[in-house]
Amino acid sequence: MIMNMTEDQIIIQIIKNIKEGKRKEFQEILDELHPYDIARIFESLPEKHYTRFLLFLYPEQIAELIQELDKEYQLKVLAKLGGEKSGPVMDLMDNDDLASLLEHLSPEKIDELLSGMKQEESTIVKNIMNYSPETAGRLMTNRFVWIPQHYTVRETVDKLKIFAEFSETINYLYVIDEEKRLVGVVSYRDLILADEYEKIYDIMFSRVISVSTDADQEEVARVIERYDFLAVPVVENNNELVGIVTVDDIIDVFIQEANEDIEKLSASGKAIDFDTKAFVAAYRRLPWLILLLFIGLVSGTIISGFEDTLSKVVALTFFMPMIAGMTGNTGTQSLAVVVRGLATHDINKKVVLKLIFREFSVGLIIGVTCGILISIIAYIWQGSPVLGLVVGSSLIMTLIIGTLAGTIIPLILYRFKIDPAVASGPLITTLNDILSLLIYFGIATAFISKLM
Amino acid sequence: MIMNMTEDQIIIQIIKNIKEGKRKEFQEILDELHPYDIARIFESLPEKHYTRFLLFLYPEQIAELIQELDKEYQLKVLAKLGGEKSGPVMDLMDNDDLASLLEHLSPEKIDELLSGMKQEESTIVKNIMNYSPETAGRLMTNRFVWIPQHYTVRETVDKLKIFAEFSETINYLYVIDEEKRLVGVVSYRDLILADEYEKIYDIMFSRVISVSTDADQEEVARVIERYDFLAVPVVENNNELVGIVTVDDIIDVFIQEANEDIEKLSASGKAIDFDTKAFVAAYRRLPWLILLLFIGLVSGTIISGFEDTLSKVVALTFFMPMIAGMTGNTGTQSLAVVVRGLATHDINKKVVLKLIFREFSVGLIIGVTCGILISIIAYIWQGSPVLGLVVGSSLIMTLIIGTLAGTIIPLILYRFKIDPAVASGPLITTLNDILSLLIYFGIATAFISKLM
Repeated sequence: MIMNMTEDQIIIQIIKNIKEGKRKEFQEILDELHPYDIARIFESLPEKHYTRFLLFLYPEQIAELIQELDKEYQLKVLAKLGGEKSGPVMDLMDNDDLASLLEHLSPEKIDELLSGMKQEESTIVKNIMNYSPETAGRLMTNRFVWIPQHYTVRETVDKLKIFAEFSETINYLYVIDEEKRLVGVVSYRDLILADEYEKIYDIMFSRVISVSTDADQEEVARVIERYDFLAVPVVENNNELVGIVTVDDIIDVFIQEANEDIEKLSASGKAIDFDTKAFVAAYRRLPWLILLLFIGLVSGTIISGFEDTLSKVVALTFFMPMIAGMTGNTGTQSLAVVVRGLATHDINKKVVLKLIFREFSVGLIIGVTCGILISIIAYIWQGSPVLGLVVGSSLIMTLIIGTLAGTIIPLILYRFKIDPAVASGPLITTLNDILSLLIYFGIATAFISKLM
Repeated sequence: MIMNMTEDQIIIQIIKNIKEGKRKEFQEILDELHPYDIARIFESLPEKHYTRFLLFLYPEQIAELIQELDKEYQLKVLAKLGGEKSGPVMDLMDNDDLASLLEHLSPEKIDELLSGMKQEESTIVKNIMNYSPETAGRLMTNRFVWIPQHYTVRETVDKLKIFAEFSETINYLYVIDEEKRLVGVVSYRDLILADEYEKIYDIMFSRVISVSTDADQEEVARVIERYDFLAVPVVENNNELVGIVTVDDIIDVFIQEANEDIEKLSASGKAIDFDTKAFVAAYRRLPWLILLLFIGLVSGTIISGFEDTLSKVVALTFFMPMIAGMTGNTGTQSLAVVVRGLATHDINKKVVLKLIFREFSVGLIIGVTCGILISIIAYIWQGSPVLGLVVGSSLIMTLIIGTLAGTIIPLILYRFKIDPAVASGPLITTLNDILSLLIYFGIATAFISKLM
C-alpha cells in the first residue's frame, strides 16, 4: 500500500493515524517498514507524538525500534516507557545492543532498569557488561541456536522451528557435546542437503573456528572478514559455547576502528562528530594542541639558539617553513602507511626490517629529488650557490630522517603494545619540525663563513 | 584428525602426502580446512609443489582456493592450470571475484581465459566487467536464489534443495514476477514458520530494498550497514533483478574506503602497503611533496617580504614554527572531523551551516585559550609585553582561521563533487602555514615601532 509513498508522506499518514487513534491503519504502515526506517521516522516526529506512537507499538516493535535509534532517542524512549513497561521491552532486545545502551548510564539507573527485567535476561545482560569493552564478550549475543551432536537432522529442523523466532541468526547451527563444549558447526545448506535421519556429528564441520570472550573486537572482525563468516561462535575457558558475534556488529567495528585511526592520526580528538557541542569538541582537542604548543616552543628555543647565525643571514629564515613543512609531510605519509598496515598485517621481525629499509629508500629517493630541486631554486632566488647547497643538503637529510621517524616511532609504540595511531600526524609533524630545524641550522652554522 | 595440529605440522603433512602421492590422505586434511586456510598454506608451499598440489584438488576446491589467494598467486595458479583446465575452474568461481581478478589483465589475456569457459558463464563475467568499477554491478554475484511469487512454500523449499549448492547465499530468497521484476523478499525464518501450502506472495515482504547496478559501492555499503542485511538485491532499469551483493564483499568495501580516506588525508599516495617497492612508493608520494615544496616556498617569499621587520626583531622568528604548526594542527583536526562526517552523514544546507558555526566556536575557544597562554609565555621569555600581545593576538586569529579553513575547504570540494579527502592534511597544513605567517607578520609590522 505505501510502497510508492515518500518518507514525508508516510510520516504525515502516521501522524494522522496517531491523532485519529487508528492503530490498525498505523500498524499496516509499519508492517511495510524496516526497523531502521521506523527509527528514522520516529526521530523526525514532533516530540509530542512520542507517547501515542509508543502506545501503538507492540513490545517487540519497541525493542526493534530502540536498537535502531541514536543514543539520545534510546534514552528518551526508555524514559517515556517508564519502569514497568521498559522491563518487558528490554527482555526482547538483543542483549549486546542492550548492554551497549546501558554502559553509558549511571550504576543506579542501570540497576533500576535491569530490576524491571526477567531475572534470566537481566543476568545475561549483567554478564555481558562484565566483559571489558571492545571484546568478543561485549559484542556477543546469546540469541543463537545450538544443537547436541547426537541429534538427527530431523530433530534439528524441529528444534529450529521452535527457536527460529528468537534466534538472532540461524545461518549456522553450533554443535555442542554433553559439557556444552563447542564441537562443530552445521550450515543451513548442509541441513537441506542431508538425509533427515543422518546424525549431526556425521554431517558437521568439526574444525570450527571460534574466538574467546576476551578476544579484542579487531581480532573478531579479522576472523569474520577472512573467512567470510556471517557469525563466529564465542567460547569461554574450556571451549564452552557462550554466544556468537554476528557480522552486522562487525561492520560497526570496522567503521569504528577506521574512525579511531583517523581521529588519532589527525589528533582530532575522540568521538567528535557533527552533533558534538562546540565546547565539548574544543575541550577534547585542546589537550593535544597545548602539548603541541609547547613542543612548538622547543623549535623556537632552537632557533633562538642560532640567533646570530640568523641575524647574519636572514635569508636562512625564508626556507625554514618549507624545510620544516616538507619533513612533517613526509613523516605523515610514512605514518599513515605504517598505521594502516599494522591494522591489517601480521607483524614479525622480518616484516619490520623490510618496512624500515623500504621507507629509508623512499626517504632517500624523495630527499635527493627534492634536495637537488630546492638547491637550484635557492641558488637562482638568492644568487648564492652556498646557500643553495646548505638548503639542498639539509632537505635531503631532513626528508630521510623525517620518513624514518614516521616509520619507526609508530613501530616502537606498537612493539610496546601502545596503539601506534597515538603517534598522530600532528605529533610526528611537530617532532619533525624540531629535527629539521636542528639539522638545517646546524649545517648553516657550519657554513656560516661561506654564507656571508 | 588434524584438529589439534599447528599450521606448520599440517603443511608438513600435506607436503608428505603430495610427495608420496597419497591423494586420499591429502583430501582428508583439506576436508577439515577453510578455503582461507588452504590458501594461506598454498602460499607458504615451496613453488615446486604447486603443480602436484593443484592436481590433487577438485575443480571446486581450486575455484575456492583462487578466490582466497592474493593477486600474484591467483595468476600463478591460472598459469599452472593452463588453457583447458582453467576454464572449468573459472566456471565454478563467483563471477564477481573472477571479474575483479580479470580486470588487472590485458584484453588479450582476458579473452584467452574467458574463451575456455562455458558460454553462459563467460557472458555473465563479461557483463559484470562492463559495469564501472566500485559500483553494485561490479560487486554483484548471480549466484542467488529467486522464486516466482506464485510458488508455494513447499515448491520453494524443493527449489532450494536443487540450488543450495551453487547459490552463494541462501539467507534471503528474492521473489520476482512474470517480467523478472523484483517484487518481494522471503527470509529462511519466514519459510520455516510458514505453512508449506501458503503462497509466497502471501508471506513475502513486499517493500523490498534494492540498489541499482550503477549505485556507488559506498551507497551499497551504507544500505547493508543500516539495515543489517546479509545481502542486497541489485536491479536494472525497470526493477529487473540481475544479482545480489553479499555482506562479505561489503566488509572489503568498508576497509577499502577507510584506507582511501586515510591515504588522502595524509597524502600518503594511493595504494601503498608494506609490499610496495620503494621506487613505486616514492614515485606515488613525490607529486604531492613537490607541490607542497612550492607552496612552502610561498611562505618563504612572504617572510622575505617582511625581511626588515624580521631583521629589526629577530625574536619574532622564535614563534614562527609554533604559530604555523598550531594553525596547521587545528586545521587537520577540523578536516578529519569533516571528512569522516561527510562519509557517513546526509548533508544539507542546515547541517553545513551548523557545522561551520560549530567549528568557528571551537576555533574561538581554542584560539583564546592558547592565545592567552602564549602571550604570557612570550612575555616572560622575551620580557616584552608588546611581543606577548603580538604573538598572542596572532595565535587567536590564526587558530580561528585555521579551523575554518580545515572545515570550509573540504565542504567546498564536496559541494563541487570533488572527494573532500583530497584536501589532505599536508595541503591544509601548508595553506595554513601561509595564512598564519601573513597574519603574524602583518600584526608584527603594525606594532613594529612598539616592538623595538
